[in-house]
Amino acid sequence: MRSSATVADCGEHAVIQRIRERVRPRAPGVVTGIGDDGAVIEPDRGALAVVTTDTLVEGIHFDRTHSSPADIGDKALAVNLSDLAAMGAVPRHVLLALSLPAACLVADVDEMIDALLSLAARHRTTLVGGDITASPGPLVLGVTAIGSAKRRRVLGRDGARPGDVVYVSGTIGAAAAGLASFRDAPDAGPAPEACRRRHRRPEARVVLGVALGRNRAARACIDLSDGLGDAVHRIAVASGVGVRLDAEALPIHPEARTWFEAAGLDPLAAALAGGEDFELAFTSPPAFRGRLRHVRRQIGELPLTPIGVVTKAREVCLRRDGRDEPLPGGYEHFAGLD
Amino acid sequence: MRSSATVADCGEHAVIQRIRERVRPRAPGVVTGIGDDGAVIEPDRGALAVVTTDTLVEGIHFDRTHSSPADIGDKALAVNLSDLAAMGAVPRHVLLALSLPAACLVADVDEMIDALLSLAARHRTTLVGGDITASPGPLVLGVTAIGSAKRRRVLGRDGARPGDVVYVSGTIGAAAAGLASFRDAPDAGPAPEACRRRHRRPEARVVLGVALGRNRAARACIDLSDGLGDAVHRIAVASGVGVRLDAEALPIHPEARTWFEAAGLDPLAAALAGGEDFELAFTSPPAFRGRLRHVRRQIGELPLTPIGVVTKAREVCLRRDGRDEPLPGGYEHFAGLD
Repeated sequence: MRSSATVADCGEHAVIQRIRERVRPRAPGVVTGIGDDGAVIEPDRGALAVVTTDTLVEGIHFDRTHSSPADIGDKALAVNLSDLAAMGAVPRHVLLALSLPAACLVADVDEMIDALLSLAARHRTTLVGGDITASPGPLVLGVTAIGSAKRRRVLGRDGARPGDVVYVSGTIGAAAAGLASFRDAPDAGPAPEACRRRHRRPEARVVLGVALGRNRAARACIDLSDGLGDAVHRIAVASGVGVRLDAEALPIHPEARTWFEAAGLDPLAAALAGGEDFELAFTSPPAFRGRLRHVRRQIGELPLTPIGVVTKAREVCLRRDGRDEPLPGGYEHFAGLD
Repeated sequence: MRSSATVADCGEHAVIQRIRERVRPRAPGVVTGIGDDGAVIEPDRGALAVVTTDTLVEGIHFDRTHSSPADIGDKALAVNLSDLAAMGAVPRHVLLALSLPAACLVADVDEMIDALLSLAARHRTTLVGGDITASPGPLVLGVTAIGSAKRRRVLGRDGARPGDVVYVSGTIGAAAAGLASFRDAPDAGPAPEACRRRHRRPEARVVLGVALGRNRAARACIDLSDGLGDAVHRIAVASGVGVRLDAEALPIHPEARTWFEAAGLDPLAAALAGGEDFELAFTSPPAFRGRLRHVRRQIGELPLTPIGVVTKAREVCLRRDGRDEPLPGGYEHFAGLD
């Protein structure tokens, strides 16, 4: 196939065949993989299945001028792995629904698929099926990820209790700075490469999520797909509690902070509202300190920062300069799309 | 919410909340439904999971001038139930990924969801999660359906053996006539309502597929999403056999036949190539006659027509007027999209 061939030249069946050739034919738990009406998988004995689906839409979640096909393929899976991580589930199987503009190059599809498969392989996860359709508009990648977790190790959003400490992994704000520098505030110049990369290639905290579940070290957990502000509100509502975050404690990415300031934005507000950090926020009571130590041993350099406490009063607030203010929410997908 | 409100007015969270309110909170096998990072489901004991995903894209699979929101929601699930049926799996759980144009009316989303949930309820299937995003282009509905089947009852495409009889359920060609009358050949006038309805509201042969699996009455099975010609080719390739279909035996929908003739099209070619019939084609040896009788008792009025035989010679042909000719393939999604 010439490198300038489009998916319309190549045809749906040939595109599927190219994907199929890239996937290892035998994999754990896969009875029937790509190539039938459905995939047949064998659930892990005694475990529950955790399923999630997240779609990336060109022009909404990515832009082909800023993200390479490999970035897009990687991210489509990463955002789903992040959801499984937030549930404490080990990722096992993946389905991919691709809606391709007719002019899309086959070489670009190959690159997307290779990146997705490479990330899947890093997490011992297998692409078992999917769907290819044409798109009259944007490129759309719909991924469904299926994971596995023991019943008592599943993490939800609804288990936070007053007195729990709220933690966040890694840093926040970098992806938002990366995205904003492409989109909203180009006058401030591009954000540092670390921030732009964070937007293009988020890293799902799979090892952390699974370790939190296995060690039963968290009472509630959520990923930061829509930002920390949103995540904390959701835990509070689902658990029927309040949360007080400490503004000083928030681990804002240092380069993102500098860029937000240069762009005339409040780094704290931008980092709280910015989506796509794909870190995990979780709550854990002080009594779980030992369990959390086990978790820290498994996650290498990734920092876990205490950023606040769960309160009985159902208010979600931010303590800043000795005063409590309401914590703003997160990213709204339809905002400004009208 | 006013009936003229758009999803952009309403916001992503409110749209999700409206869906959540429409779904019954407790359902069999659902540990955690809509509202967390992922859904948690309990696999049926001793069964395999069958998973499939199929996406409907506006402008490719449907057109909002011809299909109502309810038609679209119903069809998005039906095409996935059809894939599970072809595997012999009982549908259990569903995920829905909606990409919505900002101007899409909330009332239309409600209507789509209600139709999808109504079809799900008819098959005792539960919506457990999904994803809502904005779309800068077409309305896109991605559905993932998860079913359940005992290991030895799963139907594949690869079990056909020489001597098997090839059967097809129902009639073929009606959906293609319905679609063609909207799209390709409007000069011939609209197709009869039965044909247009078949395009808009395909019926998944869930009871048939499950009965074929449970009674172990079929050696190979596939649904006709891309037409009978395509389906037969796929069974032949996957099973390493040939098939000879009998042109006289094909159950072409009578009103579709009349309309194709009026439109100057060959009804046989049009019915073989036309996609979206969503009937099942399967092969069954004469020795399984008793099992097939059990199946017939469970499917009511739905006819099962013998249309050909599986052959050792790996050719896929159509016997017509006493001569064999190559059987044309099916629908190619990218054809004509260039």
